[in-house]
Amino acid sequence: MPLSFIALAASLAVQDTPPPRTPADPVMEAPDSAWQEISPEDLVVMDVDGKRVVIQLAPAFAPSHVANVRTFARSGYWDGATVYRVVDNWVTQWGVGGNPAYEEEDKPLPEGAIEAPPADYSRPLSKTDITPLGSSDSFSAMAGFENGWPVAVHVDGSVSPTYCYGYVGVARGADPDTGSGSELFAIIGTPARRLDRNYALVGRVIDGMENLSALPRGTDRMGVYAEGQRQVPIGRVTVMADLPEGERTRYRMMPEGSPSFAEYVYLTRHNVHYGRGTSGADICSVRVPVGKIED
Amino acid sequence: MPLSFIALAASLAVQDTPPPRTPADPVMEAPDSAWQEISPEDLVVMDVDGKRVVIQLAPAFAPSHVANVRTFARSGYWDGATVYRVVDNWVTQWGVGGNPAYEEEDKPLPEGAIEAPPADYSRPLSKTDITPLGSSDSFSAMAGFENGWPVAVHVDGSVSPTYCYGYVGVARGADPDTGSGSELFAIIGTPARRLDRNYALVGRVIDGMENLSALPRGTDRMGVYAEGQRQVPIGRVTVMADLPEGERTRYRMMPEGSPSFAEYVYLTRHNVHYGRGTSGADICSVRVPVGKIED
Repeated sequence: MPLSFIALAASLAVQDTPPPRTPADPVMEAPDSAWQEISPEDLVVMDVDGKRVVIQLAPAFAPSHVANVRTFARSGYWDGATVYRVVDNWVTQWGVGGNPAYEEEDKPLPEGAIEAPPADYSRPLSKTDITPLGSSDSFSAMAGFENGWPVAVHVDGSVSPTYCYGYVGVARGADPDTGSGSELFAIIGTPARRLDRNYALVGRVIDGMENLSALPRGTDRMGVYAEGQRQVPIGRVTVMADLPEGERTRYRMMPEGSPSFAEYVYLTRHNVHYGRGTSGADICSVRVPVGKIED
Repeated sequence: MPLSFIALAASLAVQDTPPPRTPADPVMEAPDSAWQEISPEDLVVMDVDGKRVVIQLAPAFAPSHVANVRTFARSGYWDGATVYRVVDNWVTQWGVGGNPAYEEEDKPLPEGAIEAPPADYSRPLSKTDITPLGSSDSFSAMAGFENGWPVAVHVDGSVSPTYCYGYVGVARGADPDTGSGSELFAIIGTPARRLDRNYALVGRVIDGMENLSALPRGTDRMGVYAEGQRQVPIGRVTVMADLPEGERTRYRMMPEGSPSFAEYVYLTRHNVHYGRGTSGADICSVRVPVGKIED
Protein backbone atom coordinates (compact mmCIF):
# COMPACT_ATOMS: atom_id res chain seq x y z
CA MET A 1 0.00 0.00 0.00
CA PRO A 2 1.49 3.39 -0.92
CA LEU A 3 2.43 5.53 2.04
CA SER A 4 0.12 8.34 1.02
CA PHE A 5 -2.85 5.99 1.15
CA ILE A 6 -1.93 4.79 4.64
CA ALA A 7 -1.59 8.39 5.80
CA LEU A 8 -4.95 9.24 4.29
CA ALA A 9 -6.56 6.21 5.92
CA ALA A 10 -5.05 7.15 9.28
CA SER A 11 -6.27 10.71 9.04
CA LEU A 12 -9.70 9.52 8.02
CA ALA A 13 -9.71 7.13 10.95
CA VAL A 14 -9.00 9.96 13.37
CA GLN A 15 -11.64 12.18 11.85
CA ASP A 16 -14.17 9.41 11.59
CA THR A 17 -13.92 8.10 15.14
CA PRO A 18 -16.88 9.49 17.04
CA PRO A 19 -16.65 9.68 20.84
CA PRO A 20 -17.63 6.33 22.35
CA ARG A 21 -21.35 5.94 22.86
CA THR A 22 -22.62 5.73 26.42
CA PRO A 23 -25.84 4.19 27.79
CA ALA A 24 -27.61 7.55 27.74
CA ASP A 25 -27.24 7.92 23.97
CA PRO A 26 -29.65 5.22 22.72
CA VAL A 27 -32.19 6.32 25.33
CA MET A 28 -32.00 9.96 24.22
CA GLU A 29 -32.19 9.00 20.54
CA ALA A 30 -34.87 6.31 20.85
CA PRO A 31 -37.84 6.69 18.49
CA ASP A 32 -41.33 6.88 19.98
CA SER A 33 -41.86 3.26 18.95
CA ALA A 34 -39.31 2.14 21.57
CA TRP A 35 -41.36 3.72 24.36
CA GLN A 36 -44.60 2.59 25.94
CA GLU A 37 -46.92 4.88 27.87
CA ILE A 38 -47.58 3.61 31.40
CA SER A 39 -51.29 3.24 32.05
CA PRO A 40 -52.57 5.80 34.60
CA GLU A 41 -54.27 2.81 36.31
CA ASP A 42 -50.76 1.55 37.08
CA LEU A 43 -49.56 4.77 38.68
CA VAL A 44 -50.02 5.63 42.35
CA VAL A 45 -49.39 9.23 43.39
CA MET A 46 -48.46 9.64 47.03
CA ASP A 47 -47.96 12.86 48.93
CA VAL A 48 -45.02 12.46 51.35
CA ASP A 49 -44.60 15.46 53.59
CA GLY A 50 -46.04 17.68 50.87
CA LYS A 51 -43.84 16.24 48.13
CA ARG A 52 -44.89 13.95 45.31
CA VAL A 53 -43.80 10.33 44.98
CA VAL A 54 -44.97 8.34 41.94
CA ILE A 55 -45.04 4.54 42.04
CA GLN A 56 -45.51 2.38 38.95
CA LEU A 57 -47.50 -0.73 39.88
CA ALA A 58 -46.51 -4.19 38.62
CA PRO A 59 -49.80 -6.09 38.38
CA ALA A 60 -48.17 -9.07 36.62
CA PHE A 61 -46.20 -10.22 39.65
CA ALA A 62 -48.52 -10.10 42.69
CA PRO A 63 -51.96 -9.26 41.23
CA SER A 64 -53.91 -9.55 44.48
CA HIS A 65 -51.55 -7.26 46.37
CA VAL A 66 -51.59 -4.74 43.54
CA ALA A 67 -55.41 -4.84 43.46
CA ASN A 68 -55.34 -4.14 47.19
CA VAL A 69 -52.98 -1.20 46.76
CA ARG A 70 -55.42 0.35 44.28
CA THR A 71 -58.30 -0.31 46.70
CA PHE A 72 -56.43 1.29 49.61
CA ALA A 73 -55.61 4.33 47.47
CA ARG A 74 -59.20 4.67 46.24
CA SER A 75 -60.94 4.14 49.59
CA GLY A 76 -58.94 6.66 51.60
CA TYR A 77 -57.64 3.78 53.72
CA TRP A 78 -54.24 5.45 53.99
CA ASP A 79 -55.64 8.66 55.50
CA GLY A 80 -53.43 9.35 58.49
CA ALA A 81 -50.66 7.03 57.31
CA THR A 82 -47.04 7.90 57.98
CA VAL A 83 -43.54 6.89 57.10
CA TYR A 84 -42.60 5.26 60.39
CA ARG A 85 -39.43 3.28 59.63
CA VAL A 86 -36.25 4.25 57.75
CA VAL A 87 -33.19 2.00 57.90
CA ASP A 88 -30.01 3.18 56.20
CA ASN A 89 -28.95 1.00 53.25
CA TRP A 90 -32.15 -0.98 53.62
CA VAL A 91 -35.74 0.32 53.49
CA THR A 92 -38.15 3.19 54.01
CA GLN A 93 -41.50 1.81 55.23
CA TRP A 94 -44.94 3.41 55.49
CA GLY A 95 -48.60 2.72 56.18
CA VAL A 96 -51.03 2.95 59.06
CA GLY A 97 -49.60 0.03 61.04
CA GLY A 98 -46.66 1.76 62.61
CA ASN A 99 -48.60 4.84 63.58
CA PRO A 100 -49.07 5.02 67.36
CA ALA A 101 -52.70 5.95 66.70
CA TYR A 102 -53.34 2.41 65.50
CA GLU A 103 -50.94 0.59 67.77
CA GLU A 104 -53.64 -1.02 69.89
CA GLU A 105 -55.51 -2.77 67.12
CA ASP A 106 -55.12 -3.43 63.43
CA LYS A 107 -57.12 -1.06 61.26
CA PRO A 108 -59.79 -3.11 59.48
CA LEU A 109 -59.30 -3.39 55.73
CA PRO A 110 -61.70 -1.46 53.50
CA GLU A 111 -64.52 -3.07 51.54
CA GLY A 112 -63.29 -4.89 48.46
CA ALA A 113 -59.80 -5.57 49.80
CA ILE A 114 -58.51 -9.13 49.79
CA GLU A 115 -57.84 -10.04 53.44
CA ALA A 116 -55.15 -12.64 52.82
CA PRO A 117 -53.65 -12.44 49.34
CA PRO A 118 -51.80 -15.59 48.27
CA ALA A 119 -48.01 -15.73 48.65
CA ASP A 120 -47.62 -15.86 44.87
CA TYR A 121 -44.19 -14.30 44.79
CA SER A 122 -42.86 -16.22 41.81
CA ARG A 123 -44.15 -17.88 38.65
CA PRO A 124 -42.95 -20.96 36.77
CA LEU A 125 -40.46 -20.24 33.98
CA SER A 126 -42.82 -21.89 31.48
CA LYS A 127 -45.31 -19.05 31.97
CA THR A 128 -42.83 -16.29 31.26
CA ASP A 129 -41.10 -14.73 28.26
CA ILE A 130 -37.74 -13.36 29.34
CA THR A 131 -35.07 -11.44 27.44
CA PRO A 132 -31.78 -12.38 29.11
CA LEU A 133 -29.56 -9.59 30.45
CA GLY A 134 -26.46 -11.34 29.13
CA SER A 135 -24.38 -10.98 32.29
CA SER A 136 -24.31 -13.49 35.14
CA ASP A 137 -26.50 -12.97 38.19
CA SER A 138 -24.89 -13.60 41.58
CA PHE A 139 -28.24 -14.46 43.15
CA SER A 140 -29.91 -16.71 40.60
CA ALA A 141 -29.40 -18.87 37.52
CA MET A 142 -30.13 -15.98 35.15
CA ALA A 143 -31.45 -12.43 35.11
CA GLY A 144 -33.34 -10.62 32.40
CA PHE A 145 -36.30 -8.45 31.51
CA GLU A 146 -39.98 -9.14 31.10
CA ASN A 147 -42.34 -6.42 29.86
CA GLY A 148 -40.14 -3.68 31.24
CA TRP A 149 -39.35 -5.29 34.59
CA PRO A 150 -36.14 -6.91 35.84
CA VAL A 151 -36.60 -10.57 36.77
CA ALA A 152 -34.48 -13.46 38.02
CA VAL A 153 -34.78 -17.12 37.07
CA HIS A 154 -34.03 -19.32 40.06
CA VAL A 155 -32.43 -22.75 39.99
CA ASP A 156 -35.79 -24.37 40.77
CA GLY A 157 -37.28 -22.86 37.60
CA SER A 158 -39.25 -20.15 39.36
CA VAL A 159 -39.16 -16.54 38.18
CA SER A 160 -39.50 -13.46 40.37
CA PRO A 161 -39.00 -9.72 40.02
CA THR A 162 -35.80 -8.36 41.58
CA TYR A 163 -35.61 -6.00 44.56
CA CYS A 164 -33.52 -3.17 43.12
CA TYR A 165 -33.12 0.39 44.42
CA GLY A 166 -36.51 2.11 44.59
CA TYR A 167 -38.52 -1.09 44.20
CA VAL A 168 -41.58 -1.37 46.41
CA GLY A 169 -42.64 -4.43 48.38
CA VAL A 170 -45.32 -5.50 50.84
CA ALA A 171 -44.26 -5.57 54.49
CA ARG A 172 -45.43 -8.65 56.35
CA GLY A 173 -45.08 -10.69 59.51
CA ALA A 174 -42.83 -13.73 59.82
CA ASP A 175 -45.22 -15.89 57.79
CA PRO A 176 -44.93 -15.38 54.04
CA ASP A 177 -48.62 -14.76 53.33
CA THR A 178 -49.39 -12.23 56.04
CA GLY A 179 -49.11 -8.92 54.19
CA SER A 180 -52.18 -7.33 52.60
CA GLY A 181 -50.35 -4.46 50.93
CA SER A 182 -51.44 -1.89 53.51
CA GLU A 183 -47.85 -1.49 54.73
CA LEU A 184 -45.26 -0.94 52.00
CA PHE A 185 -41.51 -0.46 51.84
CA ALA A 186 -39.06 0.84 49.24
CA ILE A 187 -35.41 -0.20 48.92
CA ILE A 188 -33.10 2.75 49.68
CA GLY A 189 -29.61 1.23 49.32
CA THR A 190 -27.90 -1.89 48.02
CA PRO A 191 -30.37 -4.09 46.12
CA ALA A 192 -32.17 -6.37 48.59
CA ARG A 193 -32.11 -9.47 46.46
CA ARG A 194 -32.59 -11.79 49.44
CA LEU A 195 -36.20 -10.58 49.44
CA ASP A 196 -36.76 -11.97 45.91
CA ARG A 197 -39.43 -14.71 46.00
CA ASN A 198 -40.11 -13.94 49.67
CA TYR A 199 -41.91 -10.61 49.61
CA ALA A 200 -44.65 -9.51 47.22
CA LEU A 201 -43.22 -6.89 44.86
CA VAL A 202 -45.92 -4.39 43.86
CA GLY A 203 -44.03 -1.70 41.98
CA ARG A 204 -41.20 0.78 41.73
CA VAL A 205 -40.76 4.45 42.48
CA ILE A 206 -40.36 6.27 39.16
CA ASP A 207 -40.44 9.86 40.40
CA GLY A 208 -39.65 11.62 43.67
CA MET A 209 -37.55 8.78 45.10
CA GLU A 210 -35.47 11.28 47.08
CA ASN A 211 -38.58 12.08 49.12
CA LEU A 212 -38.33 8.56 50.57
CA SER A 213 -34.56 7.95 50.54
CA ALA A 214 -33.35 11.21 52.13
CA LEU A 215 -35.59 10.98 55.21
CA PRO A 216 -34.02 10.85 58.67
CA ARG A 217 -33.15 7.30 59.72
CA GLY A 218 -35.16 5.79 62.60
CA THR A 219 -33.26 5.29 65.83
CA ASP A 220 -35.58 2.84 67.61
CA ARG A 221 -35.48 -0.95 67.32
CA MET A 222 -35.30 -2.12 63.68
CA GLY A 223 -35.08 1.46 62.47
CA VAL A 224 -38.57 2.52 63.54
CA TYR A 225 -38.84 6.21 64.41
CA ALA A 226 -38.30 6.62 68.13
CA GLU A 227 -40.51 8.70 70.37
CA GLY A 228 -39.42 12.25 69.76
CA GLN A 229 -38.59 11.59 66.11
CA ARG A 230 -41.15 13.01 63.71
CA GLN A 231 -43.38 10.50 61.94
CA VAL A 232 -43.36 11.75 58.35
CA PRO A 233 -46.96 12.45 57.31
CA ILE A 234 -48.39 10.90 54.17
CA GLY A 235 -51.08 13.06 52.61
CA ARG A 236 -53.29 12.20 49.68
CA VAL A 237 -52.68 8.85 47.97
CA THR A 238 -54.47 8.37 44.65
CA VAL A 239 -54.41 6.37 41.46
CA MET A 240 -53.23 8.69 38.68
CA ALA A 241 -56.27 7.80 36.55
CA ASP A 242 -58.58 9.26 39.23
CA LEU A 243 -56.90 12.67 39.28
CA PRO A 244 -58.46 15.57 37.40
CA GLU A 245 -56.89 15.98 33.97
CA GLY A 246 -54.88 19.04 35.01
CA GLU A 247 -53.14 17.24 37.89
CA ARG A 248 -52.18 14.16 35.92
CA THR A 249 -48.64 13.49 34.76
CA ARG A 250 -47.94 11.02 31.98
CA TYR A 251 -45.00 8.62 32.12
CA ARG A 252 -43.47 6.19 29.69
CA MET A 253 -41.03 3.32 29.96
CA MET A 254 -38.77 1.54 27.52
CA PRO A 255 -39.46 -2.19 27.69
CA GLU A 256 -37.10 -4.75 26.15
CA GLY A 257 -37.56 -5.67 22.49
CA SER A 258 -36.47 -2.55 20.60
CA PRO A 259 -33.02 -1.95 19.06
CA SER A 260 -32.74 1.10 21.36
CA PHE A 261 -33.20 -1.04 24.46
CA ALA A 262 -30.77 -3.66 23.19
CA GLU A 263 -28.10 -1.02 22.62
CA TYR A 264 -28.81 0.55 26.02
CA VAL A 265 -28.26 -2.83 27.71
CA TYR A 266 -25.12 -3.50 25.68
CA LEU A 267 -23.59 -0.11 26.47
CA THR A 268 -24.44 -0.44 30.16
CA ARG A 269 -22.72 -3.81 30.28
CA HIS A 270 -19.75 -2.44 28.34
CA ASN A 271 -19.66 1.05 29.76
CA VAL A 272 -16.57 2.99 28.69
CA HIS A 273 -17.75 6.35 30.00
CA TYR A 274 -15.36 6.32 32.98
CA GLY A 275 -12.28 5.00 31.20
CA ARG A 276 -11.64 1.28 31.46
CA GLY A 277 -14.81 -0.38 30.27
CA THR A 278 -16.88 -2.75 32.35
CA SER A 279 -17.21 -6.35 31.19
CA GLY A 280 -20.73 -6.83 32.50
CA ALA A 281 -23.37 -5.38 34.81
CA ASP A 282 -25.88 -6.76 37.24
CA ILE A 283 -29.61 -6.59 36.68
CA CYS A 284 -30.11 -3.76 39.19
CA SER A 285 -27.51 -1.58 37.44
CA VAL A 286 -29.33 -1.81 34.11
CA ARG A 287 -32.30 0.28 35.10
CA VAL A 288 -35.27 0.16 32.75
CA PRO A 289 -35.53 3.67 31.27
CA VAL A 290 -38.58 5.57 32.53
CA GLY A 291 -39.43 9.20 32.00
CA LYS A 292 -42.10 11.87 31.99
CA ILE A 293 -44.03 12.56 28.83
CA GLU A 294 -43.88 16.32 28.36
CA ASP A 295 -46.96 17.65 26.64
CA MET B 1 -41.46 -49.23 61.12
CA PRO B 2 -44.10 -49.27 63.90
CA LEU B 3 -46.32 -46.25 63.98
CA SER B 4 -45.26 -45.26 67.51
CA PHE B 5 -41.63 -45.06 66.42
CA ILE B 6 -42.51 -42.80 63.50
CA ALA B 7 -44.45 -40.56 65.86
CA LEU B 8 -41.53 -40.48 68.28
CA ALA B 9 -39.08 -39.73 65.50
CA ALA B 10 -41.28 -36.92 64.26
CA SER B 11 -41.57 -35.42 67.69
CA LEU B 12 -37.82 -35.69 68.22
CA ALA B 13 -37.26 -34.06 64.87
CA VAL B 14 -39.34 -31.09 65.90
CA GLN B 15 -37.57 -30.77 69.23
CA ASP B 16 -34.10 -31.28 67.82
CA THR B 17 -34.27 -28.88 64.90
CA PRO B 18 -32.76 -25.59 65.95
CA PRO B 19 -33.96 -22.49 64.12
CA PRO B 20 -31.90 -22.00 60.95
CA ARG B 21 -28.78 -19.94 61.47
CA THR B 22 -28.66 -16.53 59.85
CA PRO B 23 -25.63 -14.42 58.84
CA ALA B 24 -25.78 -12.44 62.09
CA ASP B 25 -25.17 -15.55 64.22
CA PRO B 26 -21.52 -16.32 63.39
CA VAL B 27 -20.70 -12.61 63.66
CA MET B 28 -22.31 -12.35 67.12
CA GLU B 29 -20.61 -15.56 68.30
CA ALA B 30 -17.20 -14.93 66.76
CA PRO B 31 -14.24 -15.27 69.13
CA ASP B 32 -11.86 -12.33 69.54
CA SER B 33 -9.39 -14.13 67.29
CA ALA B 34 -11.72 -13.63 64.31
CA TRP B 35 -11.58 -9.86 64.75
CA GLN B 36 -8.82 -7.41 63.98
CA GLU B 37 -8.58 -3.96 65.49
CA ILE B 38 -8.44 -1.22 62.87
CA SER B 39 -5.37 0.98 63.31
CA PRO B 40 -6.30 4.52 64.43
CA GLU B 41 -3.94 5.70 61.66
CA ASP B 42 -6.45 4.20 59.21
CA LEU B 43 -9.47 6.01 60.62
CA VAL B 44 -10.56 9.48 59.58
CA VAL B 45 -13.11 11.24 61.77
CA MET B 46 -15.14 13.87 59.95
CA ASP B 47 -17.66 16.26 61.44
CA VAL B 48 -20.60 16.66 59.02
CA ASP B 49 -23.05 19.29 60.17
CA GLY B 50 -22.14 18.52 63.77
CA LYS B 51 -22.48 14.76 63.38
CA ARG B 52 -19.68 12.23 63.28
CA VAL B 53 -18.72 10.20 60.20
CA VAL B 54 -15.91 7.64 60.51
CA ILE B 55 -14.05 6.47 57.39
CA GLN B 56 -11.73 3.46 57.37
CA LEU B 57 -8.85 4.12 54.97
CA ALA B 58 -7.65 1.46 52.52
CA PRO B 59 -3.92 2.19 52.07
CA ALA B 60 -3.34 -1.03 50.09
CA PHE B 61 -5.28 0.10 47.04
CA ALA B 62 -4.31 3.70 46.27
CA PRO B 63 -1.45 4.47 48.69
CA SER B 64 -0.62 7.94 47.36
CA HIS B 65 -4.23 9.11 47.55
CA VAL B 66 -4.60 7.69 51.06
CA ALA B 67 -1.38 9.43 52.12
CA ASN B 68 -2.85 12.65 50.75
CA VAL B 69 -6.09 12.16 52.65
CA ARG B 70 -4.12 11.86 55.91
CA THR B 71 -2.10 14.99 54.96
CA PHE B 72 -5.28 16.97 54.22
CA ALA B 73 -6.80 15.88 57.54
CA ARG B 74 -3.65 16.74 59.50
CA SER B 75 -2.92 20.09 57.85
CA GLY B 76 -6.35 21.62 58.27
CA TYR B 77 -6.67 21.72 54.48
CA TRP B 78 -10.36 20.87 54.70
CA ASP B 79 -11.21 23.86 56.93
CA GLY B 80 -14.23 25.43 55.30
CA ALA B 81 -15.05 22.36 53.23
CA THR B 82 -18.66 21.45 52.54
CA VAL B 83 -20.80 18.71 51.15
CA TYR B 84 -21.76 20.36 47.87
CA ARG B 85 -23.18 17.55 45.73
CA VAL B 86 -25.73 14.81 46.54
CA VAL B 87 -27.23 12.68 43.76
CA ASP B 88 -29.94 10.18 44.65
CA ASN B 89 -28.88 6.54 44.09
CA TRP B 90 -25.39 7.72 43.23
CA VAL B 91 -23.02 9.79 45.40
CA THR B 92 -22.57 12.35 48.15
CA GLN B 93 -19.49 14.47 47.41
CA TRP B 94 -17.51 16.90 49.55
CA GLY B 95 -14.35 18.98 49.72
CA VAL B 96 -13.28 22.56 49.14
CA GLY B 97 -13.62 22.50 45.34
CA GLY B 98 -17.34 22.94 45.10
CA ASN B 99 -17.48 25.70 47.65
CA PRO B 100 -18.27 29.05 46.02
CA ALA B 101 -15.53 30.58 48.17
CA TYR B 102 -12.95 28.73 46.10
CA GLU B 103 -14.72 28.79 42.79
CA GLU B 104 -12.33 31.27 41.19
CA GLU B 105 -9.14 29.29 41.69
CA ASP B 106 -8.08 25.90 42.96
CA LYS B 107 -6.94 25.92 46.55
CA PRO B 108 -3.23 25.08 46.58
CA LEU B 109 -2.40 21.71 48.14
CA PRO B 110 -0.70 21.73 51.55
CA GLU B 111 2.98 20.95 52.07
CA GLY B 112 3.72 17.24 51.83
CA ALA B 113 0.78 16.43 49.58
CA ILE B 114 1.43 14.59 46.33
CA GLU B 115 0.27 16.91 43.52
CA ALA B 116 -0.53 14.22 40.95
CA PRO B 117 -0.86 10.76 42.46
CA PRO B 118 -0.56 7.94 39.92
CA ALA B 119 -3.74 6.36 38.51
CA ASP B 120 -2.91 3.08 40.23
CA TYR B 121 -6.46 1.87 40.53
CA SER B 122 -5.75 -1.81 40.12
CA ARG B 123 -2.98 -4.32 40.79
CA PRO B 124 -1.95 -7.46 38.92
CA LEU B 125 -3.54 -10.67 40.22
CA SER B 126 -0.07 -12.10 40.87
CA LYS B 127 0.49 -9.54 43.63
CA THR B 128 -2.71 -10.37 45.49
CA ASP B 129 -4.01 -13.11 47.77
CA ILE B 130 -7.77 -13.38 47.35
CA THR B 131 -10.33 -15.55 49.09
CA PRO B 132 -13.09 -16.11 46.52
CA LEU B 133 -16.65 -15.17 47.43
CA GLY B 134 -17.98 -18.32 45.81
CA SER B 135 -20.79 -16.64 43.85
CA SER B 136 -20.46 -15.24 40.35
CA ASP B 137 -19.79 -11.55 39.84
CA SER B 138 -21.81 -9.79 37.12
CA PHE B 139 -19.08 -7.19 36.61
CA SER B 140 -15.88 -9.23 36.56
CA ALA B 141 -14.36 -12.68 36.27
CA MET B 142 -14.46 -13.26 40.04
CA ALA B 143 -15.07 -11.43 43.28
CA GLY B 144 -13.60 -12.12 46.69
CA PHE B 145 -11.95 -10.66 49.77
CA GLU B 146 -8.46 -9.45 50.51
CA ASN B 147 -7.46 -8.39 54.02
CA GLY B 148 -11.00 -7.41 54.89
CA TRP B 149 -11.85 -5.64 51.63
CA PRO B 150 -14.09 -6.72 48.75
CA VAL B 151 -12.21 -6.99 45.44
CA ALA B 152 -12.92 -8.00 41.86
CA VAL B 153 -10.63 -9.85 39.48
CA HIS B 154 -11.06 -8.55 35.95
CA VAL B 155 -10.71 -10.53 32.74
CA ASP B 156 -7.37 -8.84 32.00
CA GLY B 157 -5.94 -10.16 35.29
CA SER B 158 -6.13 -6.87 37.16
CA VAL B 159 -7.61 -6.65 40.65
CA SER B 160 -9.45 -3.68 42.11
CA PRO B 161 -11.58 -2.92 45.15
CA THR B 162 -15.33 -2.75 44.51
CA TYR B 163 -17.48 0.37 44.84
CA CYS B 164 -20.15 -0.84 47.26
CA TYR B 165 -22.57 1.23 49.36
CA GLY B 166 -20.67 3.59 51.64
CA TYR B 167 -17.35 3.15 49.84
CA VAL B 168 -15.32 6.32 49.36
CA GLY B 169 -13.53 7.38 46.19
CA VAL B 170 -11.54 10.31 44.86
CA ALA B 171 -13.42 12.72 42.62
CA ARG B 172 -11.51 13.74 39.51
CA GLY B 173 -11.73 15.42 36.13
CA ALA B 174 -12.21 13.57 32.88
CA ASP B 175 -8.61 12.34 32.86
CA PRO B 176 -8.00 9.35 35.11
CA ASP B 177 -5.04 10.78 37.07
CA THR B 178 -6.43 14.20 37.94
CA GLY B 179 -7.72 13.67 41.49
CA SER B 180 -5.49 14.41 44.48
CA GLY B 181 -7.90 13.15 47.13
CA SER B 182 -8.99 16.64 48.19
CA GLU B 183 -12.50 16.03 46.83
CA LEU B 184 -14.11 12.76 47.92
CA PHE B 185 -17.40 10.98 47.31
CA ALA B 186 -19.30 8.14 48.97
CA ILE B 187 -21.71 5.77 47.22
CA ILE B 188 -25.28 6.26 48.55
CA GLY B 189 -27.32 3.77 46.48
CA THR B 190 -26.85 0.83 44.14
CA PRO B 191 -23.19 -0.25 44.06
CA ALA B 192 -21.33 1.84 41.47
CA ARG B 193 -19.24 -0.96 40.03
CA ARG B 194 -18.59 0.89 36.77
CA LEU B 195 -16.20 3.04 38.80
CA ASP B 196 -14.04 -0.01 39.66
CA ARG B 197 -10.53 0.43 38.18
CA ASN B 198 -11.42 3.97 37.11
CA TYR B 199 -11.52 5.93 40.36
CA ALA B 200 -9.10 5.69 43.28
CA LEU B 201 -10.86 3.99 46.19
CA VAL B 202 -9.55 5.33 49.50
CA GLY B 203 -11.84 3.82 52.10
CA ARG B 204 -15.32 3.10 53.39
CA VAL B 205 -17.67 4.74 55.85
CA ILE B 206 -17.93 2.48 58.91
CA ASP B 207 -19.95 4.73 61.21
CA GLY B 208 -22.41 7.58 60.71
CA MET B 209 -23.17 6.76 57.07
CA GLU B 210 -26.69 8.19 57.47
CA ASN B 211 -25.09 11.62 57.96
CA LEU B 212 -24.02 11.48 54.31
CA SER B 213 -26.83 9.42 52.74
CA ALA B 214 -29.86 11.22 54.19
CA LEU B 215 -28.80 14.72 53.10
CA PRO B 216 -31.05 16.70 50.75
CA ARG B 217 -30.34 15.94 47.09
CA GLY B 218 -28.79 18.71 44.99
CA THR B 219 -31.06 20.25 42.38
CA ASP B 220 -28.50 21.97 40.18
CA ARG B 221 -26.65 20.43 37.23
CA MET B 222 -25.17 16.99 38.07
CA GLY B 223 -26.74 17.12 41.53
CA VAL B 224 -24.67 20.03 42.86
CA TYR B 225 -26.49 22.11 45.47
CA ALA B 226 -28.21 24.99 43.76
CA GLU B 227 -28.05 28.58 44.93
CA GLY B 228 -30.48 28.74 47.78
CA GLN B 229 -29.79 25.17 48.88
CA ARG B 230 -27.67 24.96 51.99
CA GLN B 231 -24.09 23.75 51.53
CA VAL B 232 -23.66 21.26 54.37
CA PRO B 233 -20.73 22.41 56.51
CA ILE B 234 -17.88 20.03 57.30
CA GLY B 235 -16.25 20.81 60.62
CA ARG B 236 -13.16 19.22 62.09
CA VAL B 237 -11.55 16.41 60.07
CA THR B 238 -8.86 14.42 61.91
CA VAL B 239 -7.03 11.14 61.91
CA MET B 240 -8.34 9.11 64.87
CA ALA B 241 -4.77 8.56 66.13
CA ASP B 242 -4.36 12.32 66.61
CA LEU B 243 -7.39 12.72 68.84
CA PRO B 244 -6.95 12.94 72.61
CA GLU B 245 -7.47 9.54 74.25
CA GLY B 246 -10.91 10.47 75.59
CA GLU B 247 -12.29 11.34 72.16
CA ARG B 248 -11.05 8.24 70.39
CA THR B 249 -13.31 5.37 69.42
CA ARG B 250 -11.89 1.95 68.66
CA TYR B 251 -13.19 -0.17 65.79
CA ARG B 252 -12.58 -3.70 64.62
CA MET B 253 -13.29 -5.62 61.45
CA MET B 254 -13.59 -9.30 60.62
CA PRO B 255 -11.27 -10.11 57.71
CA GLU B 256 -11.53 -13.34 55.75
CA GLY B 257 -9.65 -16.37 57.04
CA SER B 258 -11.52 -17.37 60.19
CA PRO B 259 -14.20 -20.08 60.47
CA SER B 260 -16.58 -17.33 61.66
CA PHE B 261 -16.07 -15.32 58.48
CA ALA B 262 -16.42 -18.42 56.31
CA GLU B 263 -19.75 -19.26 57.96
CA TYR B 264 -20.89 -15.65 57.68
CA VAL B 265 -20.21 -15.70 53.93
CA TYR B 266 -21.87 -19.08 53.51
CA LEU B 267 -25.01 -18.02 55.39
CA THR B 268 -25.23 -14.75 53.46
CA ARG B 269 -25.04 -16.64 50.19
CA HIS B 270 -27.60 -19.18 51.44
CA ASN B 271 -29.77 -16.89 53.48
CA VAL B 272 -32.96 -18.60 54.71
CA HIS B 273 -33.98 -15.82 57.07
CA TYR B 274 -36.80 -14.57 54.84
CA GLY B 275 -38.18 -17.93 53.77
CA ARG B 276 -36.99 -19.31 50.46
CA GLY B 277 -33.22 -19.31 50.64
CA THR B 278 -30.97 -17.43 48.27
CA SER B 279 -28.61 -19.42 46.05
CA GLY B 280 -25.86 -16.83 46.03
CA ALA B 281 -25.07 -13.21 46.79
CA ASP B 282 -23.03 -10.49 45.15
CA ILE B 283 -19.87 -9.08 46.67
CA CYS B 284 -21.56 -5.85 47.81
CA SER B 285 -24.25 -7.79 49.71
CA VAL B 286 -21.67 -9.66 51.78
CA ARG B 287 -20.51 -6.72 53.82
CA VAL B 288 -17.32 -7.22 55.79
CA PRO B 289 -18.37 -7.10 59.46
CA VAL B 290 -17.15 -3.97 61.24
CA GLY B 291 -18.04 -2.76 64.70
CA LYS B 292 -17.14 -0.56 67.62
CA ILE B 293 -14.96 -1.96 70.37
CA GLU B 294 -16.77 -1.15 73.60
CA ASP B 295 -14.35 -0.61 76.46
